Amino acid sequence: MRGKFITVEGIEGVGKSTIVPFVQETLESEGQKVHVTREPGGTELAEAVRGLLLSEWKETILPQTELLLMFASRAQHVATVIEPNLKAGTYVVCERFSDASMAYQGGGRGIDDTFIESLAQLTHRETSPDLTLYLDLDVDESSVRTQSRSKDRIEQEDLEFFQRVRDAYRSLAKKHRRIVTIDASRSLPEVERAIASALEDLNR
Amino acid sequence: MRGKFITVEGIEGVGKSTIVPFVQETLESEGQKVHVTREPGGTELAEAVRGLLLSEWKETILPQTELLLMFASRAQHVATVIEPNLKAGTYVVCERFSDASMAYQGGGRGIDDTFIESLAQLTHRETSPDLTLYLDLDVDESSVRTQSRSKDRIEQEDLEFFQRVRDAYRSLAKKHRRIVTIDASRSLPEVERAIASALEDLNR
Repeated sequence: MRGKFITVEGIEGVGKSTIVPFVQETLESEGQKVHVTREPGGTELAEAVRGLLLSEWKETILPQTELLLMFASRAQHVATVIEPNLKAGTYVVCERFSDASMAYQGGGRGIDDTFIESLAQLTHRETSPDLTLYLDLDVDESSVRTQSRSKDRIEQEDLEFFQRVRDAYRSLAKKHRRIVTIDASRSLPEVERAIASALEDLNR
Repeated sequence: MRGKFITVEGIEGVGKSTIVPFVQETLESEGQKVHVTREPGGTELAEAVRGLLLSEWKETILPQTELLLMFASRAQHVATVIEPNLKAGTYVVCERFSDASMAYQGGGRGIDDTFIESLAQLTHRETSPDLTLYLDLDVDESSVRTQSRSKDRIEQEDLEFFQRVRDAYRSLAKKHRRIVTIDASRSLPEVERAIASALEDLNR
């Protein structure tokens, strides 16, 4: 049986890197084989593209360049890691996927949604998440949580940028039933309970 | 007045790197300012993407990944180098451009033309070549000319691949009036005469 594809989404500071191992452990405790990965990245080439995306450059990186690099690494990641694992019956838990492009390059940078959707069609026609855990948090609180971190090129954007990203995530969550919105302002045990419940629904 | 955009296309071994300086000198001798560049590449980030594209990887690079990386570097190149030069009245001479994606990733790798065209639309809606010099050569002769060179990932493809690339170039040349086909099997002085004549027509 084909594995299930679970993505974890949200702006910086919402707790994605705490939640991903929790999802993994929950699924493994139910006897599932789980492969954990992230975007941009997940293969040797895709991680090299990630390096280019998050570095600072003397030239300004265009929104279109950023989007095309994201999807280049995604095409590679889907074909060489995500699909083979799903086909083998392994669950794949991925930190960020195409929703992030809709939120960051669409909402944040203003690229037209239809174009992003057609890139997604070319890149992973048959691979879309079975469940997306969207961790939702106020941008001011996210900014407080991340203020002591060292920040990459995209994380250095201003609050208005992240507000547009959050708005885009929230409207995606309204549109797609696969997206479960988790209130990330609650305590960790409460967040984990909500996630465990979403995972139960997935396997029902 | 806006500068003119001239691209030089063709498979390996047709003489592009000899012809580009000839085009530059001819234009400069007519008093034009000329910027010479190449694809993939032309900016610091785009050259880094070129490095990824032409390197060898343990994983197989998907045709879609290759195409998206080509267009990511092109988006960056057009916006930061080609357009500003053209707007400043400088002529831009570029070794390879979107026709190469149609030929290599379309003809060679079999990606659908319509998708490549829509990527070209997103990437450089208002920037298309005024003149394309397509150097046409039999693949067997091209292969003889390049046999002593050290070859990058794409240049290592077989003759059938290059035959499909050449076929795609030839059908592009039939379709677009801006493409002038130059018989690259002729002697260098003859090739240069043909090119000088195409450049005269452009400035008429």
